[in-house]
Amino acid sequence: MAENYSSGSCAGILYVVGTGPGSLEYVTPAARGAIEKSDVIVGYKTYLELIEPLLENKSVISSAMMQEVDRVKKAFEITESGKNVSLISGGDPGIYAMAGLAFDIAKKLNLQTRIEIIAGIAALNSCAERLGAPLMHDFATISLSDLLTPWKVIEKRLEAAASADFVMVIYNPKSKKRNWQLDTAVKIIRRYRQDHTPVGIVRASTRADETINITTIDRFDSALVDMQSTVIFGNSKSYIWKNKMVTPRGYLDKYDL
Amino acid sequence: MAENYSSGSCAGILYVVGTGPGSLEYVTPAARGAIEKSDVIVGYKTYLELIEPLLENKSVISSAMMQEVDRVKKAFEITESGKNVSLISGGDPGIYAMAGLAFDIAKKLNLQTRIEIIAGIAALNSCAERLGAPLMHDFATISLSDLLTPWKVIEKRLEAAASADFVMVIYNPKSKKRNWQLDTAVKIIRRYRQDHTPVGIVRASTRADETINITTIDRFDSALVDMQSTVIFGNSKSYIWKNKMVTPRGYLDKYDL
Repeated sequence: MAENYSSGSCAGILYVVGTGPGSLEYVTPAARGAIEKSDVIVGYKTYLELIEPLLENKSVISSAMMQEVDRVKKAFEITESGKNVSLISGGDPGIYAMAGLAFDIAKKLNLQTRIEIIAGIAALNSCAERLGAPLMHDFATISLSDLLTPWKVIEKRLEAAASADFVMVIYNPKSKKRNWQLDTAVKIIRRYRQDHTPVGIVRASTRADETINITTIDRFDSALVDMQSTVIFGNSKSYIWKNKMVTPRGYLDKYDL
Repeated sequence: MAENYSSGSCAGILYVVGTGPGSLEYVTPAARGAIEKSDVIVGYKTYLELIEPLLENKSVISSAMMQEVDRVKKAFEITESGKNVSLISGGDPGIYAMAGLAFDIAKKLNLQTRIEIIAGIAALNSCAERLGAPLMHDFATISLSDLLTPWKVIEKRLEAAASADFVMVIYNPKSKKRNWQLDTAVKIIRRYRQDHTPVGIVRASTRADETINITTIDRFDSALVDMQSTVIFGNSKSYIWKNKMVTPRGYLDKYDL
């Protein structure tokens, strides 16, 4: 919530607000505060529905299909009229979400609007919680979406992360149109990991229709994964215990109980 | 907050609770709820002081110097007596923090205690917020602490992440005793990154004594970094604009404004 830059004399503030994985239990007071201070709330329909109780008496611009770029431009247009706007991002706006695009567009259009980012519980934090403790050691976060990133770059990162034994968090593993990338990623990872490497899949984390699957990489079935899923591949030390996925940091190798 | 496993008939629950970077504005309702449901609160002194207003009427076991292993064992001992315990972790307990150790110890001692993890805003989420939007694209999170991990493993991960153009989030960059690792890491990263690569340093994020520094890798001064700092190195596309650090995802390469 640090201030960004001085706004034009009568322009409003653009808050880019992370509302977490879905449940209101994970919306921070900082996020609620930004929404309260806003006149207009702009966001993708699914995310706005999840926080409906927070939107009473607010002017809401919900977009089902509008592209991200249009949504951010719309938000800036409204701040120019002197109103404060919350641009809602599920998860954390700072992780593969709307925060960067707000700065990109402000820079390109040379806007003086004050921009405040409000961090949220990201998919990676939430999925780790649901799975147990898979992110206790170094991890790499990779999006499999090749809409904006060439597949060659993604492949290079998969290879690098797998070979250096990073735990791997996979964002955007699949969509209706992108259906082969995840299986290709698993093939790459399996070149470096043993058959019993734990894999966790969390779908619709913290929401009513949440599903959690923990398995091993040799039994991994990409049919369990959809657009709403995040997938975590363990490192060489990760283990499964009582249906939890854990990556030890190494304390018990060093200290006696 | 998913249930872990059935507890012994009269044992309490162990909540491993993330309280975020420091400010109460980032403590989720889920974390507050777990603390409310607990009879005893166990934690490191510094973290407990930050959430003091939440600890009224609670039995508090604050440890200045106690090792992590002892703290977790103590928490389990109390749950065995039938009390609910919140084991407090600054940031997110699931990222280089207490969640994994709780499972490690429960497994080793064959405890049946129910363990619930409550995710929090981690240092990486918070630092990204303070810096602008550095984590818009694939990133690798690496701890420079070689107390539990051989330096060779850390070095290999630095090399892999730098060479595959990951944004890099550095945890535990420095302590009083570990004073050379960060400069060595920078040398490795510079083999793959240009002089003008943005670097962000956030110290004591969201706390009263917070400091934020944004610079480029050729001007990076590790003297600005201490135990309370997290450092983020940009990728080849990251930029600095109006004292914010941003990694573009690529929208504006593809879409016109």
